[in-house]
Amino acid sequence: MRVDGRGVTELREVTFETNYVKHPEGSVLISMGDTKVICNATVEDRVPPFLRGQGKGWITAEYAMLPRATEQRNIRESSKGKVAGRTMEIQRLIGRALRTVLDLEKIGERTVWIDCDVIQADGGTRTASITGAFVALALAMEKSIKAGKIKEWPIKDYLAAVSVGVDSEKGALLDLCYLEDAAAEVDMNVVMTGNHQFVELQGTGEEATFSREQLNILLDLAELGIDALVAKQKEVLGPIAEKMNQGLKGE
Amino acid sequence: MRVDGRGVTELREVTFETNYVKHPEGSVLISMGDTKVICNATVEDRVPPFLRGQGKGWITAEYAMLPRATEQRNIRESSKGKVAGRTMEIQRLIGRALRTVLDLEKIGERTVWIDCDVIQADGGTRTASITGAFVALALAMEKSIKAGKIKEWPIKDYLAAVSVGVDSEKGALLDLCYLEDAAAEVDMNVVMTGNHQFVELQGTGEEATFSREQLNILLDLAELGIDALVAKQKEVLGPIAEKMNQGLKGE
Amino acid sequence: MRVDGRGVTELREVTFETNYVKHPEGSVLISMGDTKVICNATVEDRVPPFLRGQGKGWITAEYAMLPRATEQRNIRESSKGKVAGRTMEIQRLIGRALRTVLDLEKIGERTVWIDCDVIQADGGTRTASITGAFVALALAMEKSIKAGKIKEWPIKDYLAAVSVGVDSEKGALLDLCYLEDAAAEVDMNVVMTGNHQFVELQGTGEEATFSREQLNILLDLAELGIDALVAKQKEVLGPIAEKMNQGLKGE
Amino acid sequence: MRVDGRGVTELREVTFETNYVKHPEGSVLISMGDTKVICNATVEDRVPPFLRGQGKGWITAEYAMLPRATEQRNIRESSKGKVAGRTMEIQRLIGRALRTVLDLEKIGERTVWIDCDVIQADGGTRTASITGAFVALALAMEKSIKAGKIKEWPIKDYLAAVSVGVDSEKGALLDLCYLEDAAAEVDMNVVMTGNHQFVELQGTGEEATFSREQLNILLDLAELGIDALVAKQKEVLGPIAEKMNQGLKGE
Amino acid sequence: MRVDGRGVTELREVTFETNYVKHPEGSVLISMGDTKVICNATVEDRVPPFLRGQGKGWITAEYAMLPRATEQRNIRESSKGKVAGRTMEIQRLIGRALRTVLDLEKIGERTVWIDCDVIQADGGTRTASITGAFVALALAMEKSIKAGKIKEWPIKDYLAAVSVGVDSEKGALLDLCYLEDAAAEVDMNVVMTGNHQFVELQGTGEEATFSREQLNILLDLAELGIDALVAKQKEVLGPIAEKMNQGLKGE
Amino acid sequence: MRVDGRGVTELREVTFETNYVKHPEGSVLISMGDTKVICNATVEDRVPPFLRGQGKGWITAEYAMLPRATEQRNIRESSKGKVAGRTMEIQRLIGRALRTVLDLEKIGERTVWIDCDVIQADGGTRTASITGAFVALALAMEKSIKAGKIKEWPIKDYLAAVSVGVDSEKGALLDLCYLEDAAAEVDMNVVMTGNHQFVELQGTGEEATFSREQLNILLDLAELGIDALVAKQKEVLGPIAEKMNQGLKGE
Repeated sequence: MRVDGRGVTELREVTFETNYVKHPEGSVLISMGDTKVICNATVEDRVPPFLRGQGKGWITAEYAMLPRATEQRNIRESSKGKVAGRTMEIQRLIGRALRTVLDLEKIGERTVWIDCDVIQADGGTRTASITGAFVALALAMEKSIKAGKIKEWPIKDYLAAVSVGVDSEKGALLDLCYLEDAAAEVDMNVVMTGNHQFVELQGTGEEATFSREQLNILLDLAELGIDALVAKQKEVLGPIAEKMNQGLKGE
Repeated sequence: MRVDGRGVTELREVTFETNYVKHPEGSVLISMGDTKVICNATVEDRVPPFLRGQGKGWITAEYAMLPRATEQRNIRESSKGKVAGRTMEIQRLIGRALRTVLDLEKIGERTVWIDCDVIQADGGTRTASITGAFVALALAMEKSIKAGKIKEWPIKDYLAAVSVGVDSEKGALLDLCYLEDAAAEVDMNVVMTGNHQFVELQGTGEEATFSREQLNILLDLAELGIDALVAKQKEVLGPIAEKMNQGLKGE
Repeated sequence: MRVDGRGVTELREVTFETNYVKHPEGSVLISMGDTKVICNATVEDRVPPFLRGQGKGWITAEYAMLPRATEQRNIRESSKGKVAGRTMEIQRLIGRALRTVLDLEKIGERTVWIDCDVIQADGGTRTASITGAFVALALAMEKSIKAGKIKEWPIKDYLAAVSVGVDSEKGALLDLCYLEDAAAEVDMNVVMTGNHQFVELQGTGEEATFSREQLNILLDLAELGIDALVAKQKEVLGPIAEKMNQGLKGE
Repeated sequence: MRVDGRGVTELREVTFETNYVKHPEGSVLISMGDTKVICNATVEDRVPPFLRGQGKGWITAEYAMLPRATEQRNIRESSKGKVAGRTMEIQRLIGRALRTVLDLEKIGERTVWIDCDVIQADGGTRTASITGAFVALALAMEKSIKAGKIKEWPIKDYLAAVSVGVDSEKGALLDLCYLEDAAAEVDMNVVMTGNHQFVELQGTGEEATFSREQLNILLDLAELGIDALVAKQKEVLGPIAEKMNQGLKGE
Repeated sequence: MRVDGRGVTELREVTFETNYVKHPEGSVLISMGDTKVICNATVEDRVPPFLRGQGKGWITAEYAMLPRATEQRNIRESSKGKVAGRTMEIQRLIGRALRTVLDLEKIGERTVWIDCDVIQADGGTRTASITGAFVALALAMEKSIKAGKIKEWPIKDYLAAVSVGVDSEKGALLDLCYLEDAAAEVDMNVVMTGNHQFVELQGTGEEATFSREQLNILLDLAELGIDALVAKQKEVLGPIAEKMNQGLKGE
Repeated sequence: MRVDGRGVTELREVTFETNYVKHPEGSVLISMGDTKVICNATVEDRVPPFLRGQGKGWITAEYAMLPRATEQRNIRESSKGKVAGRTMEIQRLIGRALRTVLDLEKIGERTVWIDCDVIQADGGTRTASITGAFVALALAMEKSIKAGKIKEWPIKDYLAAVSVGVDSEKGALLDLCYLEDAAAEVDMNVVMTGNHQFVELQGTGEEATFSREQLNILLDLAELGIDALVAKQKEVLGPIAEKMNQGLKGE
């Protein structure tokens, strides 16, 4: 029995509140249990200097936590005057993951900015950010198509992320909350497409190491979680999901 | 007729969603029309070095906007590596205003951190921050009293803030939205106690100047707005308001 | 009787030493009692990017204190690597105030930089900076007209600033020196045109709050001070004042 | 046939030049083909504040490249005034990996600083850094034992790292050089103990994604590489390796 | 004939205005021709951490230019967020030079801060800073002795600095103004005691190099300049100079 | 007898390992005793903005120490977020010195970047950097001539640097190692051409001052050292030295 009563293969409750903020082209508040992240997608009609004149676009991400998203208040990175290593790692991961499923040629010379702002944290903020950002990206692409800026549906597949880990007593667990994450011996984040292909795999032995066998059990669990998250994404995207599915089938 | 259909002496719709985030001692999402600010109050059991050993506390504030709180995406201050002058001005104002109504001796050697994070902006973010932060502070003080950390109710009076301004055609206006604010000739922010005492008064002729007569009209409008905001604060604080009222009456 | 023997409605001795430094287009050392500020105006033949090609100019200000302008030595902001919030507030105020009386279209695509460097501080440095900067600006405009760069006199009115405040024993005071400022319950800075129009009004209850009645008394005092400062500015500007007066009368 | 003539399961030539620099407690120049990294280990007799008084130590790492380690000159991070996200990711990885095999209680209240400075880069700098840093750490621990500062051998197992990747034509490859890395569809870094346990696993689909089957092939390759690297480490450590082996067997 | 009519061995007019600013323990405005520098000396009753508990003091210097000290306005270093290399070089030079003539044991655990702020620049600002700072230091030491903080006169000798240089047409020149400095082939700054001992010697071939013979001519010129400057320092220090002379003679 | 057994006029053993790193146009590892510096020269086909379109080039230098080049580990300047004053002084010196012997017109619109990275420090790192950088520059120029980028040999003379100093017991010393440098009363760095012309001369009385006679003795010593270093440079440059000699003779 887990700390919050879930079974070891069970996700926390996941919800997506779309159009959460009014200005962005795509906006979602994702909740995975008590982890809540505002994911906003901005479409800007220009690209960074290194891409100018090549007819293709770019997608990049930024991630931050409100100071009191956590149990202890964190000092703002703007006050410190620099972005922490952890933050950079996470925002590079989010950007890289979304870049894998977005056809940059189809969006033309545009930049998509993904902003993931954690307003409440209870473990798994980076995976929730990716799963929520995918929905914000899809909404923004739909809006850009309606506005005639983008001609063809540019997203190649669904994308979701989930954490898995090993607890010394309970064994392999899916979707760790903060207490589980802090106690875990092994911590792994898995980013996959709707088609069960790996996009990113990051596993770390926190104090212990892990064997090839343990890795396989963790990856089986992660696939279960990804399936459930992608099903939720399809549900919340509704008619947009239809369009994406047709794109996936080559229709 | 104003851009959003209001009368010149009318506030936008104001709501307070308390306990919006779970970790902080006090947490409120204030909405004034489309301006939405998360106001979190953190109580920390220590004071900055310049106050150590004096038996009294401190209150300070930080303010930020999410990048896409605005129509155009703003670059994060953490990415720029420094806090903008406008941000500093606003957070100094919020801290100073709350300091006026909080009895720092009654909270002992503790620091209250107020974090105001604008998730959607439509004018008046600094005044909404003060009005919302007051409620977050009251919730945090109530919690500290229940926890036995603070013995006596430390808040001396209600506190709210509102903007007023002069439009070249419509004259004096209460609670300007973004479009009105951008067009205003004179822009004034008024912070008052529940008792109609000024805490802070900041008036600026943007392109025009203003006369003593116009000042008086603006201040009359501001008092109307403050009354309505304080009434809302009392409503949302419920039993805590009772306690504060008794404190104000010296009971 | 005030700490330095003045009456409550009396300014400290004010002097303007023009052409204090040789390189700037306009240069003034203003002394208000023991507060001494070097105010330099630089005219640069280009505008910031956001104004290019619009045929109009810009005015901006920077403010700093020498480390030993104060009783205790202050650490340089260049050593700290960032500009303090207080400094930003003051330089934004100076720039905003001067912008109100300068016709930016008449100066063409030029930027006026105002540098206010406090070499000795005894209270009221921001108001002395504005009052002195106005004279430096007028000198620089005169020089630009003589050089044929600017065709028409671009300054719309006189501009001066003064502090007023409330002392718990002596009541309302005009032009506070440092000791008075440190003890004041209410501190207010008023920026006005020669024509008694408000340009900026900033009042703060430091520990106490203030009533509408007190506000009115403070504003009456401020008007007295502004009148005396503008009279001094006219005197020091001499023939330039003549020209400005004609402009004000529409001649 | 690979770009440098190697077979797909072949490492580049690996050498360790110990005591490369005279001041550090442990110093190694590792070469993996044309990738050359100076790995220095410093033992400092104190711990960071968060660990004081707990009787245990800490290990942390820093990573940098000389500006001309690469084909194009890179701007120094000290000139830019901030450390890049990529650098932070790498140094966090190195520190985390070494922390897994070092018994922090056995080193007492000491900090081990690992400095990895790449003087010439040809792909795989982060994995070479870990493999070389392990040897520098072992040398520094041996010196600390000889100096009587540390009583018991504190390293729990061998540690090495290697890159593997997928090329669209040649398939899975071990130990990618720069040209291979730039062309790879999938890039994976594997950190393992001498005992075939995972310490860290980071796989990224650069433009493509990868399947579970591909993952398994890559991990088989990585195990081959780790075995060869650990064999080299034993050789270069000589008598120290003896001691470590006894520790591993519990003798 | 030089650009300003001087002979090649002639200094510009030198004046020292003592007690220029009221707060510092020692304050001087030095003018060397059109170069004007405010030199303030602050005595602080503590030393930097590396000197605590050793019973001796420290002296350090900071140097800055007002933005419009020069013909073209310079951007403030506080706005840029970092101190330029040139500034650092100069302030390190000033501190080092004064450290040579101040007996740090005699001032006890105190820090003397020297602030040199150039309000108008016309070449030779670093040498004027040293020559003026010496006088500010002497005034501050006199004040500390009168206040009973320092028991014995701590200054070991007079100290002054002057620039010399080589012009391709006019040959060796003493005390270069800005125009001469910009045209010079060789630029040298010489810091000497009243006793003709070198404290610091910095010669640079700007585009040309210089021979041992040229060096000797330049040093002869520098000695002439130093003699004249020290004579002026004695004059302005008056009775303090008496005291210093007795110290120098061992009386 | 000196601390390392040398005579007072003797240099430490000097070696140059050319082509030390493979990517740079010129690369040298210079060792002067235990001081070891990697000197890399990069030729970039563009100039800084202030030189564009003038048909001539630029040379600039950067200097750094690895954290453990010294007995105590130094904090990286990239971690501190700013470059120390000492570093700036040294890199400005290196750039200025090389600029004197390089004909910037002959290299066309190109920038030469000199990177001096100290991997092991034992005194004299700045002089070793200059002496080694000269060789790296010569190698890079040779390569640029072979590549047809530069038409004519652009280096005007040999360039080397050496430290001299005064020890209170042993008197004047050539080429001080760290222990000698730390104990020296006077410290002087001399940069000269192969032709005995001064390029830069920096002498500092650390605690003592120095007389004109001592200066002359130190300069005689420095000339001896420069001669020996230039002889070594000729030897290591081999056929390139031939070419340079012909250039010097005007052949």
